[in-house]
Amino acid sequence: MLAQRLIERKRDGHRVEPGEWRALVLAYTAGHIPDYQMAALLMASYIRGLDRQESIALMEAMLASGDRFALDDLGAPRVDKHSIGGIGDKVSLVLAPLVAGEGVIVPMISGRSLGHTGGTLDKLESIPGFRTDLSLSAARAQIERLGCAMIGQTNEIAPADRKMYALRDATATVESIPLIAASIMSKKLAEGLTGLVLDIKQGSGSLLPELERGIELAELMIAMAADHGCPAVALTTAMDRPLGRAIGNALEVEEAILSLKGEGPADLMEVTYALGVEMLLIAGAADSRETARRRLEDAIATGRAAERFRGIIEAQGGDPRVVDDLSLLPQAAECELYTAPRRGFIARVEPRVIGRGVVELGGGRTSMEGRIDHAVGFVITARPGDWVEAGEPLATVFARDRAGAERGKHVLGAAILIADEAERPLPLISRRVTATGVTVLDS
Amino acid sequence: MLAQRLIERKRDGHRVEPGEWRALVLAYTAGHIPDYQMAALLMASYIRGLDRQESIALMEAMLASGDRFALDDLGAPRVDKHSIGGIGDKVSLVLAPLVAGEGVIVPMISGRSLGHTGGTLDKLESIPGFRTDLSLSAARAQIERLGCAMIGQTNEIAPADRKMYALRDATATVESIPLIAASIMSKKLAEGLTGLVLDIKQGSGSLLPELERGIELAELMIAMAADHGCPAVALTTAMDRPLGRAIGNALEVEEAILSLKGEGPADLMEVTYALGVEMLLIAGAADSRETARRRLEDAIATGRAAERFRGIIEAQGGDPRVVDDLSLLPQAAECELYTAPRRGFIARVEPRVIGRGVVELGGGRTSMEGRIDHAVGFVITARPGDWVEAGEPLATVFARDRAGAERGKHVLGAAILIADEAERPLPLISRRVTATGVTVLDS
Repeated sequence: MLAQRLIERKRDGHRVEPGEWRALVLAYTAGHIPDYQMAALLMASYIRGLDRQESIALMEAMLASGDRFALDDLGAPRVDKHSIGGIGDKVSLVLAPLVAGEGVIVPMISGRSLGHTGGTLDKLESIPGFRTDLSLSAARAQIERLGCAMIGQTNEIAPADRKMYALRDATATVESIPLIAASIMSKKLAEGLTGLVLDIKQGSGSLLPELERGIELAELMIAMAADHGCPAVALTTAMDRPLGRAIGNALEVEEAILSLKGEGPADLMEVTYALGVEMLLIAGAADSRETARRRLEDAIATGRAAERFRGIIEAQGGDPRVVDDLSLLPQAAECELYTAPRRGFIARVEPRVIGRGVVELGGGRTSMEGRIDHAVGFVITARPGDWVEAGEPLATVFARDRAGAERGKHVLGAAILIADEAERPLPLISRRVTATGVTVLDS
Repeated sequence: MLAQRLIERKRDGHRVEPGEWRALVLAYTAGHIPDYQMAALLMASYIRGLDRQESIALMEAMLASGDRFALDDLGAPRVDKHSIGGIGDKVSLVLAPLVAGEGVIVPMISGRSLGHTGGTLDKLESIPGFRTDLSLSAARAQIERLGCAMIGQTNEIAPADRKMYALRDATATVESIPLIAASIMSKKLAEGLTGLVLDIKQGSGSLLPELERGIELAELMIAMAADHGCPAVALTTAMDRPLGRAIGNALEVEEAILSLKGEGPADLMEVTYALGVEMLLIAGAADSRETARRRLEDAIATGRAAERFRGIIEAQGGDPRVVDDLSLLPQAAECELYTAPRRGFIARVEPRVIGRGVVELGGGRTSMEGRIDHAVGFVITARPGDWVEAGEPLATVFARDRAGAERGKHVLGAAILIADEAERPLPLISRRVTATGVTVLDS
């Protein structure tokens, strides 16, 4: 009866008290509240909203449902980066080894792909042998040695979130600021961080397309982190087009390895460096933005970052030779060029269409149980603003078979818009959000 | 994926098309859509509302999920009464045998108690041996002989509603006009009626306390019936206090039998006659309101109605001697008088408090699986507006044991408000709603 009364209250737009959120989350995690009651509560919360105190109470209850990743005794600063998800967003793959080589511990707990966005775990698992299901104690041992582990959410971390996340996906209650913030921060604060850097995507490919809502989300998450003595900073970055060129699991790993070797696409490198600089600064591992940037560039140029990735791959059971021989990654049976159907400006490359296209090719999942073909995807070389001639190659489809290649070309036809006039894409990095305010960057 | 997209649409306040409602209800009934997705959709529908076309589409889909009760070949008019539920509302028990004796077939399919309101099936089952789980063919055979059967919703009738009703109760999505209308009418229109009379409760004890919302519900249900060539009429009646004196299963059967024998409380008889008149008129079994009323009064005065009830009880396996010997009904172990704690006017008798009190005494259920003690409840003789002296008896508690009797007195203390000034209770019958408009009665 408790659950009904709280659902009723939220349904009518009233508050649910912190103690009640705690009781609800506890009972749900223990299986005493059925999924259908939680689904009704999530929908009421989605539509009516939660105020800041409710959002924090929900997050704290989800955090308290599991264990913490205790790394405090290691002495070094512990900083993670979290992105709210985008198409072609392989920043984590580059950033974790890059920053971990510079005296900062990166205890990275990532998710799987779901819907149109990719997931770091699925990308990593396209490396032959790579395991992401490490226990917290195995991850800890690896962190002591390499400063970094890249693992999935274990049963120990925020079990309430695991249940609620799957339910939200099935019940169309994902795109809610309080629910997103509670979900992310219940996992991130379990990592026992000394600093957190957030990448808030803006534009049509984001969970929250409007800049204002992204900033609102960032501010809420920063406040949640502050309650735990964890400074946090957010950058808002463009997701009105894919990030980098590659979209698809193995293709993105390939691009990440190239980036670690200094051959990454400019936009991907820019976002990676910007987030990396914030990580070094928040860790106190660099005393200025310029020093931080130079150290990161140097880690790439000297090969330190690539070596660190090789070490992580080896430690997690993967084939480390992949760093030097990209052909060891899964290869698609069919590759097909996609050429411009007309001349004009590339007006748009629609990220959601591309993301759903990867799922159609078999490279994503529509349910948590789905299996993935790591080799399929797209490499799109055309960028919004480019002038192209008819017949000019714009992209390559990587598919499992002929039919897939054809489907992939249809996807590209729908995603890449050529027009007589160029459209103005979003600035790559537009705002910096901290506990004290919002700075306009528009770089 | 279909379900997610439709949930999303309703969540954002947009329409779900008739064909989509059909597909949803079909898939849900077949078990292809899980409860948690339906729960999210129901909550979104509750908050955002359904327009008239959507409401009708949902009802039609629920109706189409099951069979019809085919009685068309019997020739006689078939009329049922449905009440949206109240405290002490035993009208069906009196009305069905009363009207069935006057040449009108009453194929009554009723529900069980849930939450604070009672259910006709539970009341009937307090008669020793009485069975309400008749198949449609057994019910049909009884109707041919007696003009009436009083049964529960079978698996054949609107199975979609059975699933959705239980889910709505658990997810706080009951009090929604479109959802109430679709639930009631999907069952009622399966009875193959030639007329339907609705009792819309008004006041604090009703699902929809405000008169305007009750009228809105009546108009929607009348429109749904009209689509099936079934004329319908609604009366709005008072539920700011219990109806009659008895509340609790066996106690209400006792009061119903007394009413059939001409010894019913005035308010209960007035509502019963008013609804009965509408049933005879809509059936074409009387040519004027006055004739209809006289026939019903005559059926009571001559004992025809009581005899009909005896026949129904016998046909459905119950002990027919109960009509003459009320002591054959289950008796509570403890009876305790409740007296006025002070002098003054009875300002209010709060029906919800009384209804929940019956549940507390063990006479109702909090989940569909709960068992019921038929003997417990209250008989409240004090009426709003009465002047009472301190120590004057106002009510009797019927309980299972001493502790229950004490709890019952607390319930009465909370429900019966005595004040220096009388409050104005709602008129017993306030509006008559038909397909052509609303008439003010305020009797």
